[in-house]
Amino acid sequence: MNRTIATAALAFLTASAAAQPLKPEEMVKFRQAAYTTMAWNMGKIKAMVEGAAPFNQTQISAAANAIAALANAGMGSLYAPETLGKTGYTPTRLKEEFFKEPEEVRKIAAHFIEQANRLAEIAAMGRKEEIAKQLSEVSKACKACHDKYRAEER
Amino acid sequence: MNRTIATAALAFLTASAAAQPLKPEEMVKFRQAAYTTMAWNMGKIKAMVEGAAPFNQTQISAAANAIAALANAGMGSLYAPETLGKTGYTPTRLKEEFFKEPEEVRKIAAHFIEQANRLAEIAAMGRKEEIAKQLSEVSKACKACHDKYRAEER
Repeated sequence: MNRTIATAALAFLTASAAAQPLKPEEMVKFRQAAYTTMAWNMGKIKAMVEGAAPFNQTQISAAANAIAALANAGMGSLYAPETLGKTGYTPTRLKEEFFKEPEEVRKIAAHFIEQANRLAEIAAMGRKEEIAKQLSEVSKACKACHDKYRAEER
Repeated sequence: MNRTIATAALAFLTASAAAQPLKPEEMVKFRQAAYTTMAWNMGKIKAMVEGAAPFNQTQISAAANAIAALANAGMGSLYAPETLGKTGYTPTRLKEEFFKEPEEVRKIAAHFIEQANRLAEIAAMGRKEEIAKQLSEVSKACKACHDKYRAEER
C-alpha cells in the first residue's frame, strides 16, 4: 500500500470515530444525500466533457472539488451494521457483506478517494480529454463498490 | 458590493448557465441532497466545537471544505421557476417569491458563499472558538434564505 492510498484509507477510517452521534436512519439519509450530490457533480462534468453542455473550466473545477471534498469528508463514519435494512430517503441497498470484508472495503474506499482527488487536480488543469479519462476512473471506482456491496434496485 | 461578494455572486450565477439539462424534479432532488449534505457537515462541526464529539482538526477541516465546495458548486443552477411545487426526495418548500426578488436572492447567496469560504479558512487554522463563531455566521446565512424563501414544514 503506497503512501497516497494509506492516507486515503485513513481519511475514510479516522472518520469512523464518529464526529457526531447519529441514528441509523440519519446515517443512511446522509449517505444517500452525499452520493446523490456527488452524482450531480459527476453528471455536470460528464455533460461538459461530452459536449452536451458548453465546456466551462470554472464549473468543471468546482464540480470536481465538490466530489473530492465529499470523498474526503468521512463517508466511512456513515456506515454501521445497524444501518442495514434501514430507510433514509429510500431503503438502503447496502449488503451485509460490506461489514464482513473490512479490508476489501478499505481498499475500494481508498482507491475512490485517490481517484476523486486526482480528478480535482486534473480538472484544475483544464484539458478536456484528460478530465474525461479521469472521470471514467472515478466512475469505475464508484462501480467497484456498487458491484460488490449494493443490491440491485427493487 | 465588494470584490469578494461580487465573485461569490458570480459563482452562484454563472452556474445558472446550466452545465447539464435536468428535469425540475431532478433539480429539486439535487438541491435537497446538497443542502442535506451541507447540514451533515455543519452537524459534525457543531458536535466537535460544542464538545459532543472529540475535537479533531482533520475532520473539522474536511467538513468545512465540503460545505465550501458545495456552496461554490453552482447551487444556483438548480433553481428554476419550473421547480416550484415539484417533489425531489420530498416536496420542495421553495416559495415563488424566490424568483421575484433576484437581487435579494443574489445578495443572500453571495453572503452564504462568502461565509462558507471563510469557515473553511478558519477551520484550517484550528482554533475552536473562532470556528464556533464562524459556524454561527454560516448558520445565519442559511437562515436568511430559509426565513424569506422557504415555507414552513407541512
